[in-house]
Amino acid sequence: MFQNKNTTPLSELGEFGLIDHLTKNFPLIHPSTHKGIGDDAAVMNFTEGQTVVTTDMMIEGIHFDLSYVPLKHLGYKSVIVNLSDVYAMNAHPTQITFSVAVSNRFPLEALEELYAGIELACKNYKVDLVGGDTSSSTKGLIISVTAMGQAQKQKITYRSGAKPNDLLVVSGDLGGAYMGLQVLEREKEVFKVNPNNQPDLALYSYCVERQLKPEARKDVIELMEELGIVPNAMMDISDGLSSEIFHLCKASRVGCTVYEEKLPADPQTSGTAEEFKINSSTALLNGGEDYELLMAIRTEEYEKIKGHPLLTPIGHFTDQKDDCNMVTGLGQSIPLKAQGWKNFNKDESA
Amino acid sequence: MFQNKNTTPLSELGEFGLIDHLTKNFPLIHPSTHKGIGDDAAVMNFTEGQTVVTTDMMIEGIHFDLSYVPLKHLGYKSVIVNLSDVYAMNAHPTQITFSVAVSNRFPLEALEELYAGIELACKNYKVDLVGGDTSSSTKGLIISVTAMGQAQKQKITYRSGAKPNDLLVVSGDLGGAYMGLQVLEREKEVFKVNPNNQPDLALYSYCVERQLKPEARKDVIELMEELGIVPNAMMDISDGLSSEIFHLCKASRVGCTVYEEKLPADPQTSGTAEEFKINSSTALLNGGEDYELLMAIRTEEYEKIKGHPLLTPIGHFTDQKDDCNMVTGLGQSIPLKAQGWKNFNKDESA
Repeated sequence: MFQNKNTTPLSELGEFGLIDHLTKNFPLIHPSTHKGIGDDAAVMNFTEGQTVVTTDMMIEGIHFDLSYVPLKHLGYKSVIVNLSDVYAMNAHPTQITFSVAVSNRFPLEALEELYAGIELACKNYKVDLVGGDTSSSTKGLIISVTAMGQAQKQKITYRSGAKPNDLLVVSGDLGGAYMGLQVLEREKEVFKVNPNNQPDLALYSYCVERQLKPEARKDVIELMEELGIVPNAMMDISDGLSSEIFHLCKASRVGCTVYEEKLPADPQTSGTAEEFKINSSTALLNGGEDYELLMAIRTEEYEKIKGHPLLTPIGHFTDQKDDCNMVTGLGQSIPLKAQGWKNFNKDESA
Repeated sequence: MFQNKNTTPLSELGEFGLIDHLTKNFPLIHPSTHKGIGDDAAVMNFTEGQTVVTTDMMIEGIHFDLSYVPLKHLGYKSVIVNLSDVYAMNAHPTQITFSVAVSNRFPLEALEELYAGIELACKNYKVDLVGGDTSSSTKGLIISVTAMGQAQKQKITYRSGAKPNDLLVVSGDLGGAYMGLQVLEREKEVFKVNPNNQPDLALYSYCVERQLKPEARKDVIELMEELGIVPNAMMDISDGLSSEIFHLCKASRVGCTVYEEKLPADPQTSGTAEEFKINSSTALLNGGEDYELLMAIRTEEYEKIKGHPLLTPIGHFTDQKDDCNMVTGLGQSIPLKAQGWKNFNKDESA
C-alpha cells in the first residue's frame, strides 16, 4: 500500500531515533504512570487494589492479512484485544506496552500508520503507552502487546465463580466479526481475479467494522458499576461463544443450558450469514473476535438488567458439571460443541 | 535437533491443552502473585512501592540462530534479558509473562525444552510465570517476554540521574558474550564444510556460556543494598558499553571520560579476541549482550566499592554535556564512538 509514495526506509532513523519518532505524540495521562518510555523499564504506582496483566501476540499471515487490514486498524485492534481481557477481569486498563517487529519491506510511513491506530486506542480508552520493543523480523509483521489494569480486589471477576442457577449473560451481539471476515476474504478472492473491481462493502459495514475495528466493552463494565452488579464470573469472547462457555463451566465446575433463540445477533450478521449459506447459529456460537463479555449473574439481579439493550441473558448455569446443552429453536436439547473457530493459533491468555 | 526422535505434533494437544501441559510444573512462589495462568489476565498485589515493567521480543534469524542455540538456553536467556532490565532499575523482578509463536516444524518436545529453560530462570531468580500466549507462526520461532518487578520509590534508578564527577562503574566483565558469538558462528561455518567435525568449545567455555546462558546481575543489586549504595543512575549493558554510555550521558545531560585500561575483561575474552584478530577494546566497548550493569556512583562512595571484584570504576562523568571521551592505553584522549553492535534490531526498552 505504500509502494507508490515517497517513503522513508526505517534504517534512516537509526535504531533509537525510530522509537522516539513513533511515540513522540503519546501523552502520559494516567495517574498511576510514573515513568513511561525511555528507560530500562517503565515505572508505575499500583498502590491501590490489585493489578491485572495480560498479553497477546499477533502475527501476519496467522492473525491478520495485510491485503485487507489497514495498518491503523491493526494497531487499534491489537490494543483492543488486550484491553478486552482487562475488562473481562472487571478491571480498568491503565497502561500498555507495544512491541513490533517488521521486515525491511515496511517503510517508516507504515509504522506511522500502525502507531496512529495505537494512539487512537490509547486515547479512546485512556491508557498510557509506557514501553515496548522495536526490532526487525525476517518475514512479515509481528506484534506483541501487554496490558495492565487495576481494580479493587472484591470487584475482580474470575472465570471460576459461576454458580448453578446464575444467569448466563452476554453483552452486545455475536457473530459479526466472523461474518465480516468472510466478506473480506471473499473480496480478496474477487480482487485476485479482477484487480479493477471496486469492492462495495457498504452493505456489510457493521460486520466489516466488527472485524477490522472492534471495541472493548468499557461501556459494559461501567454499566455494571452503575447497576451495582459484580458478576460471579466473567470472560471475554475472543474465541467463539461455545468455546468460552466451556471454559467458564470448566473453571466454575458447573454446567449450563443455552437457548438458541436468545443468542443476540445484528440483522446484518444474520443476513450476511444467509447470503454466505452459513447457518446463523453456527456463526453466533463459533465465530470469534467479537470481544463481547460473557457473564454469570445472580438471578436476584435479573430485574436490574432486564431489557437492557447491552445485555442479553442467553441461558443459565446448572449443577451438572461440564454438561453444556443448547435448547434449539425447535425445543430440542442438544449438547453444545466446544468448537474453537481456529486451530492452534489462539491464545490461552493471561 | 528433534528429527530423529519420536516426537509429538503440537496439534495433538489441542489449543488449550498445550499451555496447560507446558506450564504445569511452574509453581507460584511470589507473595505478590494472586492469580497466575488460566484466566483472562493474571492478578497481582503490587501495593508496596513502585512497579517496573519491561518487555523484549526475540525473533529467530534476528536475535538467535537455532543451529547453535539450544532451546533450553534460549528459554533461559529470553527471561534473563528482561530480568536484567528490571535489575537495571534497581528493582527486584517478581513476575513474567512469556509468549511464543512457533511454526509446525516444532514438535511438542521442542517447546518442552524451551519451557525447561524458562522454568530454570524462574527458579533461579524467584519469579513467577503468570501468563502468556501460545500461537502458531508462519515461519520460525518468536518469543516475547514481559517482566515486572518492585522497588521502593527512593531506590529506583533511572538513566537520568548521573552527576558530573560521579564515578562510572561497571559490574563483572565485558566483551565475553560477543566473543562467544564469534566462536559459535565460526563453528557453524566449520560444520557446514564438515558435518562430522566435533567442535571443541572447552577452550572458549566462558565466552560461549556468556553468549548462550547469560545471567542477570541479581548479585550486584543485592551487593549494592548491602553496601547501602543507591546509584545516581543505572542501566544494563545489552547493546554494548559505548552505546550505553551515550544513553546514560544523554539522559543525564552530562559527559564522561572512560579509561581504556580500566575496562574489565576476562582473560579468555582477550585471548579469544586476539585469536580472532579483533581489537580487544573494540570487543569490550561494542560487544553486546553482556547484561552487566553500568552505574553512576557518588565519589564519596568510592571507598565502599574499592577493589570489589564485582565492580570496576572505568571513568567519571563530567559537566561537558554529551562529550564522551576515552583515554587510550597510550594516554591519548579520543572521542568515544556510539556504535551499537547490531543495526536496526535492538530494543529501546521500556
